[in-house]
Amino acid sequence: MRIGIDAMGGDSSPATEVKGAMAACQFLGPEDRIVLVGHEEAIRPHLQGDGPWRGRIAVHHAPDRIGMGESPVEALRSKPDSSIAVMAQMHREGQIDACISAGNTGACVAAAQMRLRRLRGVHRPGIAIITPSYRGPVAICDVGANVDCRPAHLFQYGVMASIYLEAICGVSNPRVALLSVGAEDAKGNELVKRTHQLFREAPPMPMRFVGNLEGRDLFRGLCDVLVCDGFVGNVALKLMEGMAEAVLKAMLEELAAAMPDRAADIRRSAGSVVAKYDFNEYGGAPLLGVGGILIICHGASDHRGIMNAVRVAAEFARHQVNQKITELLSTGRDDADG
Amino acid sequence: MRIGIDAMGGDSSPATEVKGAMAACQFLGPEDRIVLVGHEEAIRPHLQGDGPWRGRIAVHHAPDRIGMGESPVEALRSKPDSSIAVMAQMHREGQIDACISAGNTGACVAAAQMRLRRLRGVHRPGIAIITPSYRGPVAICDVGANVDCRPAHLFQYGVMASIYLEAICGVSNPRVALLSVGAEDAKGNELVKRTHQLFREAPPMPMRFVGNLEGRDLFRGLCDVLVCDGFVGNVALKLMEGMAEAVLKAMLEELAAAMPDRAADIRRSAGSVVAKYDFNEYGGAPLLGVGGILIICHGASDHRGIMNAVRVAAEFARHQVNQKITELLSTGRDDADG
Repeated sequence: MRIGIDAMGGDSSPATEVKGAMAACQFLGPEDRIVLVGHEEAIRPHLQGDGPWRGRIAVHHAPDRIGMGESPVEALRSKPDSSIAVMAQMHREGQIDACISAGNTGACVAAAQMRLRRLRGVHRPGIAIITPSYRGPVAICDVGANVDCRPAHLFQYGVMASIYLEAICGVSNPRVALLSVGAEDAKGNELVKRTHQLFREAPPMPMRFVGNLEGRDLFRGLCDVLVCDGFVGNVALKLMEGMAEAVLKAMLEELAAAMPDRAADIRRSAGSVVAKYDFNEYGGAPLLGVGGILIICHGASDHRGIMNAVRVAAEFARHQVNQKITELLSTGRDDADG
Repeated sequence: MRIGIDAMGGDSSPATEVKGAMAACQFLGPEDRIVLVGHEEAIRPHLQGDGPWRGRIAVHHAPDRIGMGESPVEALRSKPDSSIAVMAQMHREGQIDACISAGNTGACVAAAQMRLRRLRGVHRPGIAIITPSYRGPVAICDVGANVDCRPAHLFQYGVMASIYLEAICGVSNPRVALLSVGAEDAKGNELVKRTHQLFREAPPMPMRFVGNLEGRDLFRGLCDVLVCDGFVGNVALKLMEGMAEAVLKAMLEELAAAMPDRAADIRRSAGSVVAKYDFNEYGGAPLLGVGGILIICHGASDHRGIMNAVRVAAEFARHQVNQKITELLSTGRDDADG
């Protein structure tokens, strides 16, 4: 397997991506390769020293980069030599089997949609993130690829995220819930009510629909997959990120002020809670439903985030997630736009 | 001023409501009165002893109650003698000047819409909650009254919540932001994009539109009022509630295990962080835009929650929030449904 890594997209590129690629070689088989896509002159100085990565990491030159604030579609059009555009094209042509990027999420999604197309039967791709929870992993889909959803899109997110969660975390027959404003079937906006019906009427699938759940239920171990539109999912994800930071910071300050002699103990203990909310442990989020493998990392990922994304990409391929999605969704009955 | 309190709606009714009403008398002028609405036989036993509340709290008998899980509209229709229905009718007839309930939120909203109608010029009422933040209060509107919003509804939530925040917290000319998936003007779903335009094109109002913000920005002191549709707002609110609980609990467990000798200190320090996320400190959330005053409390409110709701109702009236909303929104230009 050949895995492409966008070496220009993240907040600390290319150093982080190169370091992550080197560390990731431990997850790869002897025939597997990593291709760093980006400006060769910027990447080469970081590829120094010896290690098991020697001979397993190649560089593919792409001189341009798309910034975080750029408009995705415009940037892709005006920068065909950007690392994201080049990497997507390489995937399309079969030069690589998976893409990883910590760059502009919108540009990654747009590049994948343009170059890799959708899997047969899939209406809209969605990003599935596996979130921390003290009661096991929960996959949330979509967290930002599709901000104006229709019921059929949400239903397919449930199916695709179930297949993905089973492949990556070994959760069989996952419990799928719809994110709503109350657990009662009749609660929710129009989109949720209509999606609820689709889940109830669906033919047997390797998942169990457990109904609607509220935001607070995410922390209560009541579902394995949480389905929502990309607008709600993105708001929720960033809210959790901001809140973990704010609450933990406040707590540390209060405790350190109350017990100045134990500041080191406090920081150490807090660290293990923070780690549960550390996106770097989760190795990025796949864009489910496209005809290839794209793993999107947080822009602030460190080398562990990149390393874990390589692991996720390898597992994604090994468990044939895309083949399973196609088997379930390309019934021939409904290949339309959704 | 006469303030009605639904004594049957909350999780620990009527004890909590009666205790809250007694404590609230400190906020009231000598002529003000509180009317507890609910089953007289259930309420009377709690009205024992002496105190400044004597002669200032009355009971209005309403034999029925609407449960938390009941469908709002059906319950109001089948239970005309429920505390919520009776209290709304009393407000309509001018027997009371404000309503407070910790009961079924949907039933409160529906009763207010049916009995109190909308203020002139208001398209849809919205619930505005003032959330904790280390950088000052932030009002979020709507958090659940209206789960299928149109752009004009969201725009009016910005106007109404600004007036409310200024009245209750003294924040003049509040900074209003739209909750979205990125700070850039072009990001968001269709609803947010169209609402953004409405804010940009609006005539001068006593608020400053500062553009779009992400979920994480709620904790960064970048706005005073955050506007969203009631579905997103409700999901966000409950997510914050669940997460505050989950993260704080995890942190306390880690710390107590690491420093068993300092468990008491840890609990005490944690308490002051938890207090910042305690909805009881915030005194409930008004339903803005109806022709009356309805303050909705969390179902799990303790007596302080009820007491603070009385304070909010009194401030709401004193600052003439409804008159100010009507002045700004009833331009005569657009009294339609929105």
